[in-house]
Amino acid sequence: MQNEPNFPICQIVGYKNSGKTTLMEKLIRYFASQNKQVGTLKHHGHGGEPELVKETDSYKHLEAGSRISAVQGENQLQITINDASSKLDELIQFYTYVPIDILLIEGYKQAAFPKIVLIKEEQDLQLINELDNIIAIGTWDDNLVKNLNYFTFIMEETDNNLPRLAEYITVKDRTHFKKGNLKNGEKLLDNE
Amino acid sequence: MQNEPNFPICQIVGYKNSGKTTLMEKLIRYFASQNKQVGTLKHHGHGGEPELVKETDSYKHLEAGSRISAVQGENQLQITINDASSKLDELIQFYTYVPIDILLIEGYKQAAFPKIVLIKEEQDLQLINELDNIIAIGTWDDNLVKNLNYFTFIMEETDNNLPRLAEYITVKDRTHFKKGNLKNGEKLLDNE
Repeated sequence: MQNEPNFPICQIVGYKNSGKTTLMEKLIRYFASQNKQVGTLKHHGHGGEPELVKETDSYKHLEAGSRISAVQGENQLQITINDASSKLDELIQFYTYVPIDILLIEGYKQAAFPKIVLIKEEQDLQLINELDNIIAIGTWDDNLVKNLNYFTFIMEETDNNLPRLAEYITVKDRTHFKKGNLKNGEKLLDNE
Repeated sequence: MQNEPNFPICQIVGYKNSGKTTLMEKLIRYFASQNKQVGTLKHHGHGGEPELVKETDSYKHLEAGSRISAVQGENQLQITINDASSKLDELIQFYTYVPIDILLIEGYKQAAFPKIVLIKEEQDLQLINELDNIIAIGTWDDNLVKNLNYFTFIMEETDNNLPRLAEYITVKDRTHFKKGNLKNGEKLLDNE
């Protein structure tokens, strides 16, 4: 039985060191400042695991053979699952039990949710052909993306553009938004 | 929408230092050795939070204002929720998405699931009157529990009694099981 997520989902994808983590943090901070409940999900990449605090009971339970171990504190709940097989759709199910207003996902390039692609170098441009459902492109070099028919923004100007970017991420219908580079303070809507 | 858990649930309750963590670990290890998928849940007690590894992305997301943050590694998934309000029934929902064969819960005394109560000192006996759905009592002192009409076992003999204890925890109908102290190797069923 699956619950249908009723919150917007946005992926931040790009190669290593393209600024994904920084953009995630800025968006989290912005949405939280607007009193939005933010959920986040990150793919750790290949060969890595989330770090666990050893000597905790949760760690001991997993060491002893527990498949899923959770610890509830006064204000925080931590759940750790020993399981290689979770698909993204299954993971998103977890978020349907916490009232969130938006889910920001770092990584999972091959998934089909609306995504912001970060382009740092020319060779990164291949991502644009490979990935589905790109809604925006963040770049470090305006020249790289100037001929692309996408909503684009300069990473160095992220702070000033956060309100617009957040609106663009969460709005249901983006057809009336301008394409092209998002300049500082520029209006996004054709009819604004 | 709630899924009904289709796995047996057993709580381990008792006062601080009564041996809950040790019994949890022994049971996890035993069930895992029987190729059972074990889920565990622990209440951290008042004033505490699960420890997080700082400098991880998950920690950064929560610091930035994320309400629920998850990191998926190659074999492990870790989810942290900033939320004081989760009820036990809601927490158990998480476990319905992972195929588990049994859920062992440490703490949550006031919940109504079948529970093993640990009695270390005479004053701990009050728990027996206060708590619902006690299925067994583990004790450090046989004299404390000898007149109680419960299935009892000596904590020092846990290792030898694990198969019987595990059976008792997971069986649906305990009416045919003997009451009283579980001796080493003693048969549990009246008709065995």
